[in-house]
Amino acid sequence: MPILNKDMQVCMSLAARPSNIGTRFHNFLYDELGLNFIYKAFTTTDLEGAVRGIRALGIRGCSVSMPFKEAIIPLVDVMEPSALAIESVNTVVNDNGVLTASNTDYEAVELLLDERRLDVTQSVLLRGSGGMAKAVVAAFRGVGFENVTIVARNEEAGSALASRYGYAWVADEPDAPFDIIVNVTPLGMHGDAADVLSFSPEHIAAASTVFDVVAFPSETPLIAAGRAAGKNLITGAEVIALQAARQFERYTGVALTPEQVARASEFSRAE
Amino acid sequence: MPILNKDMQVCMSLAARPSNIGTRFHNFLYDELGLNFIYKAFTTTDLEGAVRGIRALGIRGCSVSMPFKEAIIPLVDVMEPSALAIESVNTVVNDNGVLTASNTDYEAVELLLDERRLDVTQSVLLRGSGGMAKAVVAAFRGVGFENVTIVARNEEAGSALASRYGYAWVADEPDAPFDIIVNVTPLGMHGDAADVLSFSPEHIAAASTVFDVVAFPSETPLIAAGRAAGKNLITGAEVIALQAARQFERYTGVALTPEQVARASEFSRAE
Repeated sequence: MPILNKDMQVCMSLAARPSNIGTRFHNFLYDELGLNFIYKAFTTTDLEGAVRGIRALGIRGCSVSMPFKEAIIPLVDVMEPSALAIESVNTVVNDNGVLTASNTDYEAVELLLDERRLDVTQSVLLRGSGGMAKAVVAAFRGVGFENVTIVARNEEAGSALASRYGYAWVADEPDAPFDIIVNVTPLGMHGDAADVLSFSPEHIAAASTVFDVVAFPSETPLIAAGRAAGKNLITGAEVIALQAARQFERYTGVALTPEQVARASEFSRAE
Repeated sequence: MPILNKDMQVCMSLAARPSNIGTRFHNFLYDELGLNFIYKAFTTTDLEGAVRGIRALGIRGCSVSMPFKEAIIPLVDVMEPSALAIESVNTVVNDNGVLTASNTDYEAVELLLDERRLDVTQSVLLRGSGGMAKAVVAAFRGVGFENVTIVARNEEAGSALASRYGYAWVADEPDAPFDIIVNVTPLGMHGDAADVLSFSPEHIAAASTVFDVVAFPSETPLIAAGRAAGKNLITGAEVIALQAARQFERYTGVALTPEQVARASEFSRAE
């Protein structure tokens, strides 16, 4: 990397527990493309103060993670449809003091579902009801899926999410087979639930497509099982790379090629 | 430079018109010493918001330039003697949310006067009455000079500064010779006054030491004239490097060798 200079534009992230992924993804591409930008992950216990700082210092963009995705809404000036639809923000762009919020998770999942040309008449079983589940469910609705069942132990969140999009909610994994199974919970993520298979072997066997939003590791027990069974796969690594690419394009105005996204994604995950 | 990572500590500066010097000085040394820090210059029109951001984002340190050196005082938590004595801040260190202000310009000039072992019984003619003049005059008093005359067209500021330290004020350059002449005005600085010699040829000829606080260029007409006449010289480049070194030590806890300061200073000025 070149040595920093005063004219560099700064992008950043806000998360309770920052990972190194965004910092490595964006800086890798700034370097490769010769853009005068830097990117740095931050955490905060004062979201309002952090946003005040973004305005006061002219920070160009900010990626927003848990637990700030909803709390930041009253602090921005403009909500794009992607954020407004699901009341969840993961991207803020600062245009001369005007903060515009969007949700590139939502956009990235829609793009992936589109690109894979999944048959929208297929049945979907989706596990989860948190912030990311809102984005993924909205994306399934956005591309036209009508037969989606949300399985979530949290009845209030699960049934609200389902009814919002005209989908079904169940508390426990049903016996019936589904064409597409989607995990949007921490099951299989690094940590306590790393070894947990987020769907039953029967559901995996019956599905044609296995989709896991967990990105660390992207080779979750669910993806490993789907891969072993020769299923069509969509991984959390793909989602996080594509959503970061959409952020990158918003921050810099530079559109990325799939090859650039792939290289940056690989670099961001290799530590 | 290594690619940025999430755990890097961030230092920054706030100035109406940032230069590249601090950014290059600090990042050069972070790189040479292998410290996990970055430094970036910022400007702002909302000082209070910027300081709120420093707190909210856990920015480690902030260098403060014109026009924020006095305005930042009510926004910090602790004033060190170097800042309190002259009611002017150029350095803020953030220790887990406690902002401590100091003035390393003052410290740097005191150190330089000490190092050069100037005779404190010598007479001093000092031009200027602005923020930096406060730091330089206080430093002359701090090392024990008693015979200092401040020449400043601004009577209010000049006479207030002089009387505060028991020194004399005059509106116009007197005829009498002085042992040490000190410029603390923009005369000789890049821009409209670049060609202006800040003292008369007679005063330069009579002086044994010529001191110019102007750092860009450090080879001002005054310094050039003093050099040609074989005078003892103190340059603005020395002041800015030493004050930056004191900031560096406060931000990182790492003490610099004179050779390190010299290398970083040379790098910071070579663009």
